[in-house]
Amino acid sequence: MGSSSSNRPEQSSPPRPAARLRIDLFSIFPAELDAMCSLSILGRARAQGLLDLRCWDLRRATKDAHRTVDDAPFGGGPGMILMPEPVFAAVEEVSGPRPLLLLDAGGRRFDQAMAAELAELGSAESGGFSLLCGRYEGVDERIRTELVDGSVSIGDVVLAGGEFAAMVVVEAVGRLVPGVLGNASSPMDESFAAGLLEHPQWTRPASFRGLEAPEVLRSGDHARVARWRQAMALVRTAAERPDLVAARGVSDADRELLAEFGLELETGC
Amino acid sequence: MGSSSSNRPEQSSPPRPAARLRIDLFSIFPAELDAMCSLSILGRARAQGLLDLRCWDLRRATKDAHRTVDDAPFGGGPGMILMPEPVFAAVEEVSGPRPLLLLDAGGRRFDQAMAAELAELGSAESGGFSLLCGRYEGVDERIRTELVDGSVSIGDVVLAGGEFAAMVVVEAVGRLVPGVLGNASSPMDESFAAGLLEHPQWTRPASFRGLEAPEVLRSGDHARVARWRQAMALVRTAAERPDLVAARGVSDADRELLAEFGLELETGC
Repeated sequence: MGSSSSNRPEQSSPPRPAARLRIDLFSIFPAELDAMCSLSILGRARAQGLLDLRCWDLRRATKDAHRTVDDAPFGGGPGMILMPEPVFAAVEEVSGPRPLLLLDAGGRRFDQAMAAELAELGSAESGGFSLLCGRYEGVDERIRTELVDGSVSIGDVVLAGGEFAAMVVVEAVGRLVPGVLGNASSPMDESFAAGLLEHPQWTRPASFRGLEAPEVLRSGDHARVARWRQAMALVRTAAERPDLVAARGVSDADRELLAEFGLELETGC
Repeated sequence: MGSSSSNRPEQSSPPRPAARLRIDLFSIFPAELDAMCSLSILGRARAQGLLDLRCWDLRRATKDAHRTVDDAPFGGGPGMILMPEPVFAAVEEVSGPRPLLLLDAGGRRFDQAMAAELAELGSAESGGFSLLCGRYEGVDERIRTELVDGSVSIGDVVLAGGEFAAMVVVEAVGRLVPGVLGNASSPMDESFAAGLLEHPQWTRPASFRGLEAPEVLRSGDHARVARWRQAMALVRTAAERPDLVAARGVSDADRELLAEFGLELETGC
């Protein structure tokens, strides 16, 4: 990936009216971001026309030779911050789908519920949404208050830019789109869908360095496997994320499941 | 980025003994990950020898023609999960720095405090650390319990793989290394360093579409600018992340600062 991308095409594929999810991304690294948008399942889904991901250059509307988008902050201090003029101009020129969300440490915490909301917002019926990758040295406040519709944060952490955070959003939302994962039942059968972490998994070999995959998984009793997995998801979540179990509660049915397999929760709930 | 990378070099630069941070990354997409490791400040810092980022192919120790690393889970269900044999073999063959952390939704929540810890762990004195990018369809439990030393999560969200989450970690940790940002004072002068979001910023033009940058920032009174910024960081954090203000508390000195500029906090604290 080169650091300059001003002469490259901003997107690798033409708009596809049938796409089930549209996300427009604004960044000073559009070519690099476009490459990331083709990693793994994202690339396959773009090729199949399921995802319409468009990466736009924040420098596209600049008119100076250096294509400047940042400047020193008023009042001094380290770092450069994104200027309002080129950013407003790029966003208005593209006129991508709204809402436009800024990747920002002060934004709404991105989680699975927000991913589901964005998958809905991004659908063909809703028209899509857009992401603005700030440079985390700072963004002119007028961009935050007047241009974007909201902001999203992937955690209490400071990054150099919003690109990797944006890709976390794109991947989490993209995989919820029907057809993007091979198996349509996959997206829901995992962590957080039921307020729990995913149950532990084992694959071949059954015995590896003396460590055996649990017998129940090889029993062929699918109903019992499903009950055991539910119980183990609860056990794992109680051990690793007791806050999730506390928020969800433990029902009588849960207790029966645990008792069936002789399992106990580590926490006192 | 192509989807196949088995014939490409796994890293773009030779080991540099003087690097101030070493991180080894294991993934089925080593070339794509290596490209991401050169985005923006990361690429500059690698070229300067400050960061030693090594991307390794999880398929490197496979011996079958398809270089298989995943298989169907015991007990059935959608998706494929990472097998223990090739993953143990790859990690043991490389023998990268420990701890080895799995990107996993059930892991420790990545935040600025953890970024600082990892910057310490990753230093030349400490020897570095490693990240294992799972496929989030699942990872054989024996990898989780016997191979890795811990796990890290970037939030309650399900991804297709750990690559973008790993890059969030790499970028957040990398930017804390002295010299990676141009200005040595930059890393601390931002969100979360003092338990608050960063103060709002403005740059040129002073007036944009009738919206003025605050007069105080253009006053040249640096001490007053610093006090105003501190007060505004508090105001912004109270509005966007009242949990942070509640955790930190509001001191008498804070109240004096707010009073000096006629500011109030939105929350009742």
